[in-house]
Amino acid sequence: AVERLQPFGATIFAEMTALALERGAVNLGQGFPDWDGPAAMLEVARGQISTGNNQYPPVRGAAELRQAICEDRARNFDVEYDPGTEALVTTGATEAIAATILGLVEPGSEVILIEPYYDSYAAAVALAGSTRVTVPLVPDGTGFALDVDALRSAVSEKTAMIVVNSPHNPTGTIFGLAELSAIAELAVERDLLVLADEVYERLTFGLVHIPIATLPGMASRTVTVSSAGKTFNVTGWKVGWALASQTLLDGVLAAKQFLTFSGGAPFQPAVAHALRHEQAWVTDLVADLQRKRDLLTHALEGAGLSPFRTEGTYFVCARVDQDALSYCRALPASRGVAAIPVTVFTDHPEPWREIVRFAFCKTDEVLAEGIRRLT
Amino acid sequence: AVERLQPFGATIFAEMTALALERGAVNLGQGFPDWDGPAAMLEVARGQISTGNNQYPPVRGAAELRQAICEDRARNFDVEYDPGTEALVTTGATEAIAATILGLVEPGSEVILIEPYYDSYAAAVALAGSTRVTVPLVPDGTGFALDVDALRSAVSEKTAMIVVNSPHNPTGTIFGLAELSAIAELAVERDLLVLADEVYERLTFGLVHIPIATLPGMASRTVTVSSAGKTFNVTGWKVGWALASQTLLDGVLAAKQFLTFSGGAPFQPAVAHALRHEQAWVTDLVADLQRKRDLLTHALEGAGLSPFRTEGTYFVCARVDQDALSYCRALPASRGVAAIPVTVFTDHPEPWREIVRFAFCKTDEVLAEGIRRLT
Ligand SMILES: CSCCC(=O)C(=O)O
Ligand SMILES: CSCCC(=O)C(=O)O
Repeated sequence: AVERLQPFGATIFAEMTALALERGAVNLGQGFPDWDGPAAMLEVARGQISTGNNQYPPVRGAAELRQAICEDRARNFDVEYDPGTEALVTTGATEAIAATILGLVEPGSEVILIEPYYDSYAAAVALAGSTRVTVPLVPDGTGFALDVDALRSAVSEKTAMIVVNSPHNPTGTIFGLAELSAIAELAVERDLLVLADEVYERLTFGLVHIPIATLPGMASRTVTVSSAGKTFNVTGWKVGWALASQTLLDGVLAAKQFLTFSGGAPFQPAVAHALRHEQAWVTDLVADLQRKRDLLTHALEGAGLSPFRTEGTYFVCARVDQDALSYCRALPASRGVAAIPVTVFTDHPEPWREIVRFAFCKTDEVLAEGIRRLT
Repeated sequence: AVERLQPFGATIFAEMTALALERGAVNLGQGFPDWDGPAAMLEVARGQISTGNNQYPPVRGAAELRQAICEDRARNFDVEYDPGTEALVTTGATEAIAATILGLVEPGSEVILIEPYYDSYAAAVALAGSTRVTVPLVPDGTGFALDVDALRSAVSEKTAMIVVNSPHNPTGTIFGLAELSAIAELAVERDLLVLADEVYERLTFGLVHIPIATLPGMASRTVTVSSAGKTFNVTGWKVGWALASQTLLDGVLAAKQFLTFSGGAPFQPAVAHALRHEQAWVTDLVADLQRKRDLLTHALEGAGLSPFRTEGTYFVCARVDQDALSYCRALPASRGVAAIPVTVFTDHPEPWREIVRFAFCKTDEVLAEGIRRLT
């Protein structure tokens, strides 16, 4: 691989899922649900295959899907986007992230990541020929919070973008209005772009997710990324999207059109259907996930680990009182469970050295078996 | 968009397809078939959705698909790849191209493109921070041929890679053993990588496609890209692949995992099925396409245009005796047909100024209607 990519090996998800398969372990590592999305959505996808929707969708995505995405966004978060010019369908959130960074961040500039950070951000920054600067989350008692002073200090003359991931993977932290406002004020003051990765926007447990794009001055400087994978249990369909002002979105599109052009033809109307007609299904999903979070959190406590508070996402982090990477490499064989060491998402691993991420987005049977093995 | 992407507007395919839709034109522009792939392949995809194959496939692709790709390659072209380490499933050939260039070409180096070239090559080279150097195809009487001397002269100390697209889009040229050997010898002599875009490998009319990776010294320096989209009429599924030595493929994977991770879960076993069981379907497809090529070529002659020889792909190029871009921008309104000006695929448009690409990958009814409107 080119020098820029040398620091990036195989993603931790590939490594840990391979290990899980090899050992027959319960996979609480990679974040994917093991049960199906709404039946009617699957039926639409099958019907689309049957009726010949198997050729290139438009590069921006099927018009009905862009319409449904914008309606869904307006209904849930009271924010308006024009489906014609401000919505772009992508091959999952991953492509939206890569295209946003490749399309909008000039080589030689800096991008601020909040640590621990999802691995693809760092790789996309490297591919863009820019440099990442990290700011840590800090313990706030039961969970984690943003260190706003550290964020402010991290901004330099070269800073082009801040990546804000809330609800946050891996910690399950949801940034509140105070934290988001601090980021927004800084972005406006220093004229920065924000990439808002909000793929877990619907998977929140009690707290309300606030899109940072809705804060004053942010609409014109934020690219918001989300996806159907997490909301409708179809991570393998890779239907995601980016929402932004036309000017910013044109930059994202400039890169996106040459990364994959377009894809997932029969899935696009299916996701449009789900966004329009499966809100009750999502409500049930969230209630289910909240229950699973509680189950796993209590089980981890019972196993003598120290779980942190998690407010959304698929994940709960816990202190394991030993090196997290060694623990996770041994766990599939020793206990028949896979999990992810949080250190792999950091440049400054010290505070995270003993913290492990466990996924609870599994059927009750699988989760119970994972818990049985862990405890 | 970032400066690197400024020269790249909306892809010509998006522009011309939008114009075609607006005008109700017969779309002989963008290259996609308008009839379905093998029924059993579609049935497998529907079945996979039903049986819950809707989560992330492995980042390298489903094992059964990698196995089927390697078997297909061995059967058709007598060349061996290890499905475990030398085959990578991608989101269409487009992602394979982007990942190959981003993963293997260092910033500041040069990549040689044969002109006219598929637009995503140039954009991927720009995204990689490298520079393209173009070498033209030249008229050879009825069609086009590679100018081997020009290619040799184009290699510099900075050259990292040559992109070889055969069967060639947009001209339909198939490079013969002499041309491929000349490229291969040069690549070996100057220690260059080759990106072989062979998406039309099966769509050849009489001539046999020779994978450049099979020539002496080339296996270790070639990344071969292909896709199911063109072979099985599913351009909207975006199931493609890259084949290369483990060392090269690891570089492609390093980039690919952060562009989209993986995707198309239910399509992957369907394409594996097609590669294994639908060879007769492909034979019929090729016979059909050859007949359609002949139909369109004669019709273009009848319309007073001068078509070139085409040996493969979906396309025939013709001289229209006026500026190709103006002609193509006017054609949807004036004649109710869309086509692609070849100039958009060139850095040195002069020799191509009056040449237009027409697609013949359409049902007989649609093609006949397009021909009726053109003549
Ligand atoms: C793209 S594989 C990783 C899935 C995921 O989002 C996670 O586990 O964090
Ligand atoms: C990815 S859209 C372009 C389709 C195509 O390969 C062509 O028309 O040349």
